[in-house]
Amino acid sequence: MDGEFVSRERDRMLAELGEFLAIPSISTLSDHAADCQRAADWVSDELRRLGFPVVEQLDRGGHPIVWAESPPVPGKPTVLIYGHYDVQPPDPLDEWKSPPFEATVRDGKLFARGAVDDKGQVYCLLKAYEAVRDGDGLPPLNIRFIIEGEEEFGGHSIERLLQEEPERTEADAILVCDTSYYAPGIPAVYTALRGICYTEIEVRTAQRDLHSGNYGGAAPNAMETLCRILGDLKGRDGRINIPGLYEAVEPPTEAEFASWQELPFDMDDFLTEEITARSLAGQEDRSVFERLWALPTFEIHGIMGGFTGEGAKTVIPARATAKVSLRLVPNQRWKTALGQLEEAVRAVAPDYADIEVRPIHGADPVQVDVTQPAFAVLDQAFTEVVGRGPVAIRSGGSIPVVASLGLRGAPVLLTGVGLPDDGLHSPNEKLDLQQLWDGVAIFGRFFELFADQPV
Amino acid sequence: MDGEFVSRERDRMLAELGEFLAIPSISTLSDHAADCQRAADWVSDELRRLGFPVVEQLDRGGHPIVWAESPPVPGKPTVLIYGHYDVQPPDPLDEWKSPPFEATVRDGKLFARGAVDDKGQVYCLLKAYEAVRDGDGLPPLNIRFIIEGEEEFGGHSIERLLQEEPERTEADAILVCDTSYYAPGIPAVYTALRGICYTEIEVRTAQRDLHSGNYGGAAPNAMETLCRILGDLKGRDGRINIPGLYEAVEPPTEAEFASWQELPFDMDDFLTEEITARSLAGQEDRSVFERLWALPTFEIHGIMGGFTGEGAKTVIPARATAKVSLRLVPNQRWKTALGQLEEAVRAVAPDYADIEVRPIHGADPVQVDVTQPAFAVLDQAFTEVVGRGPVAIRSGGSIPVVASLGLRGAPVLLTGVGLPDDGLHSPNEKLDLQQLWDGVAIFGRFFELFADQPV
Repeated sequence: MDGEFVSRERDRMLAELGEFLAIPSISTLSDHAADCQRAADWVSDELRRLGFPVVEQLDRGGHPIVWAESPPVPGKPTVLIYGHYDVQPPDPLDEWKSPPFEATVRDGKLFARGAVDDKGQVYCLLKAYEAVRDGDGLPPLNIRFIIEGEEEFGGHSIERLLQEEPERTEADAILVCDTSYYAPGIPAVYTALRGICYTEIEVRTAQRDLHSGNYGGAAPNAMETLCRILGDLKGRDGRINIPGLYEAVEPPTEAEFASWQELPFDMDDFLTEEITARSLAGQEDRSVFERLWALPTFEIHGIMGGFTGEGAKTVIPARATAKVSLRLVPNQRWKTALGQLEEAVRAVAPDYADIEVRPIHGADPVQVDVTQPAFAVLDQAFTEVVGRGPVAIRSGGSIPVVASLGLRGAPVLLTGVGLPDDGLHSPNEKLDLQQLWDGVAIFGRFFELFADQPV
Repeated sequence: MDGEFVSRERDRMLAELGEFLAIPSISTLSDHAADCQRAADWVSDELRRLGFPVVEQLDRGGHPIVWAESPPVPGKPTVLIYGHYDVQPPDPLDEWKSPPFEATVRDGKLFARGAVDDKGQVYCLLKAYEAVRDGDGLPPLNIRFIIEGEEEFGGHSIERLLQEEPERTEADAILVCDTSYYAPGIPAVYTALRGICYTEIEVRTAQRDLHSGNYGGAAPNAMETLCRILGDLKGRDGRINIPGLYEAVEPPTEAEFASWQELPFDMDDFLTEEITARSLAGQEDRSVFERLWALPTFEIHGIMGGFTGEGAKTVIPARATAKVSLRLVPNQRWKTALGQLEEAVRAVAPDYADIEVRPIHGADPVQVDVTQPAFAVLDQAFTEVVGRGPVAIRSGGSIPVVASLGLRGAPVLLTGVGLPDDGLHSPNEKLDLQQLWDGVAIFGRFFELFADQPV
């Protein structure tokens, strides 16, 4: 590995990454389809610049999937790198201190939508590859990249590809860099991801909006009905009132509980720096780690309908729709949870309401066995660069494709160089530049060390 | 009165009214301030065309108030006509069958925002005036117009004017044409209006939006908190859970109850044609009329915050705001109700939430004594034109200025030529043209008959 690479190429890397981050590749918004294509092109061009002889864009009905193979290095293992070039919408826009699609460095941090999730981390792996090439441009082992554009959107293109052409993801290890350190200075590798069941719940009570002066008091109000239903679906005690939802939940092992107890955790910091709230929500009899990693959640993301403009409009909304998701934990299945949610909604809905529960996307939870040898190699790479190996924790997030990627038996290394305060999906998302530079070195060393693994 | 006026001038009237309706004078939206001015100018110009020697636009800090005096007719009584040129916002736009600001006739009905509320009815009174002028352009009695631009917005300009210059509304009768028939063929005069307390309730649980993958389960969700609060504020039984709210409510008299029992009412029609719902909401032990006219209401009009775009964003909203109004009935006071609402919200809010209840506008309820002589004159005018006089009913709506208009003792005749299915404040608001033509004749006859009243 080129030890001078990072210090020498820093300015060029910032410029390149800035270019990538400037593309508003928001996969959930159809207006931005062309930007998703531009982001795919950017990744493809970069892979070609790095000497990948095979770079393809695969179309499975949605945004293109970039797939690339490095020059073959016979007799060496293969690492598959998964990442995504799409990003979340930037709203609320007015809370950004600098424009979300103009990467801006302040105080050693790079601010932009996608800085850490996941463009910055994809870029980090591209540069790790660049840093470990030899004089002929050859890497120490075989590398495949698969970079998709529907991660934030729950698109099905990559699932379709994996079903149709599973050989494209054949590898001896799969590296997924879309998560963060446990805390500054404490890298992490993940033993589980939560699943997700993202839905829209629509309530209709009339054919048209009504005037509350004319009909208020006798006409049903869809917004009120929706609020009451949603209010009922989770108790003040933090427990979700969806019959059957908790039945499949597999609790963590005693060993896992014990390991969580050893993690440094400062409640004041968590409240003030991370969740920026006065106190915790959720089930009081459960630890923070259980609430975040080992229990399903119910979140209302937004509510549509009625009048939300400036001033006053005295409308009785005829329909109201909530965006609601459940996060799911090991042994739950998202389609089962969807059915349970739908039944629970119907059970508490009044007779005068028509209810529709529409699935937007779903993913089952994932568990990873981190005792496989590839994890020891990752541990060594981290230790050499930042002085310590990763702690094994869970993630409360979901990376839908991981379940499918792991189906063929290769170990899936879920790790990353983000920090907990990076503001994923929020205004002012950032990536600490030191984390980026460390990441280039860590994953470069991982490639070199893993090259010595038996195939 | 010119008996041929309506049949002769129909086309011109449709063209003129179409011009007035084309102005998007949405008073609640600051972007439309210039349109409100244009609507005020349109009314002023029309009054000048009709020969009003005094036409003024009065500025009390908001949209202008048009005030005009007809040529003096000594020894005759004075009728003050109140109306408003401002309209509600047209959203949801995609539910309009023709553009809201392009008046369109279909099947004998004129569709446009403001067709009945209140531009169409203001126009009706202007034409009634035109129809009763004599050969010299003189009316049979003294007429004053006061047409404001903040009725839909709860603006304070007119209240300020009435306080500062009460002599401008001096009259022997005040005619307010901003309501509708009880049913097709059954005109109405109103004995009470509900008051209103329109608010925004904001819940804040964190400094910034969070990612539900990172923090879902442990971080408070402002949207969920708001839904639970709102769900709690009204029971499934239709009773509002705001302590003290019902205390001041003065129930209708036995006579009033009895008169309501005589009103024709078809529940099936009410459900399918009017509220377009499967069943009623509200307190089951109360009649429809009580629910609409004699009990306070609680309505959620819309909810802001979080993510409401296309697709999926897994945000935990840090803040959420609901537009909520209470309608109030005789003897309640809106400022008292506001305080009670605020206390009730705080009482059910969890510790981790910051709550703000912001008043947007308010009006006290109104009661009118319809035994005064002017009401007999109105009865005769209706009877001559449509064959029957108005029934005395209440309105569930609020016309904030009426309380102040009536303070000087003149009878306030609350009536109108709308029909219950006009879709006020909704998409496809309409005015039946026959109602408009009848209205021109009814109010023309009212002016002539009232001219004979002793001053």
